[in-house]
Amino acid sequence: MKPVLHFYVTYFLCLTLGVLCVVFVLYWNTTWRGGFAWDGSAHQFNWHPVMMVTGLVVLYGNAAVLYRIPSTWAKKKQPWKLLHAGLLFLALLLSVLGLCAAFDFHNANHIPNLYSLHSWVGISTTAFFTFQWVLGLTAFLLPCSPITFRKLVKPVHVWMGSIIFVMSVASCLTGINEKLIFISQGKTNATQRYPALPPEYVFANILGVLILAFGLVVLKILLNQRWQRPEEGHNENTRLLAVEHS
Amino acid sequence: MKPVLHFYVTYFLCLTLGVLCVVFVLYWNTTWRGGFAWDGSAHQFNWHPVMMVTGLVVLYGNAAVLYRIPSTWAKKKQPWKLLHAGLLFLALLLSVLGLCAAFDFHNANHIPNLYSLHSWVGISTTAFFTFQWVLGLTAFLLPCSPITFRKLVKPVHVWMGSIIFVMSVASCLTGINEKLIFISQGKTNATQRYPALPPEYVFANILGVLILAFGLVVLKILLNQRWQRPEEGHNENTRLLAVEHS
Repeated sequence: MKPVLHFYVTYFLCLTLGVLCVVFVLYWNTTWRGGFAWDGSAHQFNWHPVMMVTGLVVLYGNAAVLYRIPSTWAKKKQPWKLLHAGLLFLALLLSVLGLCAAFDFHNANHIPNLYSLHSWVGISTTAFFTFQWVLGLTAFLLPCSPITFRKLVKPVHVWMGSIIFVMSVASCLTGINEKLIFISQGKTNATQRYPALPPEYVFANILGVLILAFGLVVLKILLNQRWQRPEEGHNENTRLLAVEHS
Repeated sequence: MKPVLHFYVTYFLCLTLGVLCVVFVLYWNTTWRGGFAWDGSAHQFNWHPVMMVTGLVVLYGNAAVLYRIPSTWAKKKQPWKLLHAGLLFLALLLSVLGLCAAFDFHNANHIPNLYSLHSWVGISTTAFFTFQWVLGLTAFLLPCSPITFRKLVKPVHVWMGSIIFVMSVASCLTGINEKLIFISQGKTNATQRYPALPPEYVFANILGVLILAFGLVVLKILLNQRWQRPEEGHNENTRLLAVEHS
């Protein structure tokens, strides 16, 4: 398969899995968890998985692979930079709202915050992501930012970006596993508990598998050096042809 | 910092975190979980986290970064290939034994197998790892393996290697989180439960953070293109100098 076609097949898989993750997390929380509200109840908590999966995983992952789309390479980078930053801002906003949903629910129901490994990994992910977004804005979007500073920050930005994404996926998987155990604890009928795998648990496990699959496809795109956008000043056409014929 | 020095500082961090992961998982299971046995009891289960963290994460991660050590580049690749395959065989052996420990404990205590998201991710990780090891052996160690087959398999092997490692880390984090919730369920005194964070839970949470940190450092090494071993036939000395002065 030609590399450009190979990219678009992988990218299509990435988009499809992303959409499926959002559909599955919404369906889980509307069908089995009672839907949504913002009143300190369990219905407010339901925003937490929806916003974290949509923001921290799907929007974040799509923003990360944006520069890898070959059809954008021959165009000016600035609009893609703005789209990258904009998608990530939306992802950050959803993550913070998702955290508020969990904290509000815990506080209203006298449940302690930040005790589980899931919460430790999750809060660190959002903190690193906030730092990364502010540093990215300062280095790459402020016109007064010196070139030497941009060059210094770029490899850190690329590496930190992948690391935070892996942390996001790990946060979501630990969170879904934890939530299903908590739901199971509240059931007195053994056939309704996690080990019996009634439909809700199978569905939410599949959501976890979809998040992992989306994460691995995004990482595959990020790891493939032939899919990297050429540096500014490099002859994009030569690069495209080289990729096409390699 | 010079790239070669930068590598060795990162590699030292990788080795230190790896040792800490093994020490922490052993200390957790001897101090708070009652130590080890192979008799179908909870003491047999304790081998599960120890073997999975040691095999699937620490040995696997160290085997993955082996080719990145610059001091090995000027030497013949074959002994390093054998060490890479040997370490991964040990990792695979520990993973399979670790799975047996969990299955035996479940079967002896009439606990269903393979229902949680942790178990789904974990069993897939070990299955992919087994496939990857056999494919790697066939393609890169069998002398009769054709060069065209090796060239075809190599990018898949490198990409699959990173993907399986991310899955290993996710399996361990979901597993530790799940185990701590199960332990907490058995406690009647609220001060001994997970939300109150008595010492065992803090310690095991820190183990989870150490595994994540080790995983991220290994990924940092794998993602850095400048730390890749030059292809056979390439002038290693030129490459080393280029890396040293870039």
